Amino acid sequence: MTSFPSKLIEDAVSEIAKLPGIGRKSAFRIVLHLLKQETSFTENLTSALTRLRNQIRYCSRCFNISDEEVCSICTSSQRDTSVICVVENFKDLLAVENTGQFRGLYHVLGGLIAPIENITPDKLKIQELIQRVENENISEIILALSASIEGDTTAFYITKQLKHLTHLKITSLARGLPIGSELEYADEITLGRSIQARVAYGI
Amino acid sequence: MTSFPSKLIEDAVSEIAKLPGIGRKSAFRIVLHLLKQETSFTENLTSALTRLRNQIRYCSRCFNISDEEVCSICTSSQRDTSVICVVENFKDLLAVENTGQFRGLYHVLGGLIAPIENITPDKLKIQELIQRVENENISEIILALSASIEGDTTAFYITKQLKHLTHLKITSLARGLPIGSELEYADEITLGRSIQARVAYGI
Repeated sequence: MTSFPSKLIEDAVSEIAKLPGIGRKSAFRIVLHLLKQETSFTENLTSALTRLRNQIRYCSRCFNISDEEVCSICTSSQRDTSVICVVENFKDLLAVENTGQFRGLYHVLGGLIAPIENITPDKLKIQELIQRVENENISEIILALSASIEGDTTAFYITKQLKHLTHLKITSLARGLPIGSELEYADEITLGRSIQARVAYGI
Repeated sequence: MTSFPSKLIEDAVSEIAKLPGIGRKSAFRIVLHLLKQETSFTENLTSALTRLRNQIRYCSRCFNISDEEVCSICTSSQRDTSVICVVENFKDLLAVENTGQFRGLYHVLGGLIAPIENITPDKLKIQELIQRVENENISEIILALSASIEGDTTAFYITKQLKHLTHLKITSLARGLPIGSELEYADEITLGRSIQARVAYGI
């Protein structure tokens, strides 16, 4: 597939092929599909994309992606407003949300501290988190960050910034063997930590 | 991935996931990508799709997909206007075009005769082909149709419609073993036809 005898098709294929996970062949398949469907099919698609890009913003409270000034989780009356789950980004927020195990609020940092990549604490929404914890009636924050150097650094930094709030409980996600995993395939570091952090066996 | 706490995201994911070969997971990846890029990225994409869908039409001469009233192949001065390659659709036209072996004109039928699916000759651009052959100075038509019952039926029908034009040469694509294929893996019908249609061995 070298080129198309139509600039309209060539332009559409080029633009679609810029999207992640889509090559020129798939892009061409999509173009043929659009041409086969009613005009309204393409209109619905482009209108949804335009609205998405122009109207979406960040919740002014938790920095979650939001349709409104304050996001639907922050405004919900069904949530426990005394617990904040701190996550790196929107994807991690969704991952936690989809477990159905958490009914509190969130705070999206927008990244993790990584001095080598020039991501210093002031580039993240850490100061805003501190203010929320100080001003709202928060009893616990859960640091739901990646098990990486950056995640650990960020957790450590946040904990230090909040140590003056003696009433506040700071927790982090449990680390250990994934559910359903076999011992012999576990990596040494995870297995080692699982032994150190062993818990009472309850039946 | 059940749902998103944002109608804008949900709408965009739903629309993107309607495209062929894209599931909700890939659609969400695309949405996150769009949100990370500048607004102009999404604008370029939606504008290309809108232009594609609204401006594209069929060449009034060969029924190829075209940006203009007559397509770029029909208007080209570089093409041999005495030979027409008859194809089922735009994809097949591109396949022939990309071999670089054909410099004549095309005629896109828009399908193949298939009475079971209610595709009768009058639903295809066969009458238009007859008129072109009668009115333009055509010396040969190449029936580049699929090696299927529908392809054979269509080829037979067109040949019958054109038999009054005694000067016209009607050819079809050579059938036989694909280049590079091994004899032992060839299907019996292809191999049988290859024996029947054997050609003089030239060194």
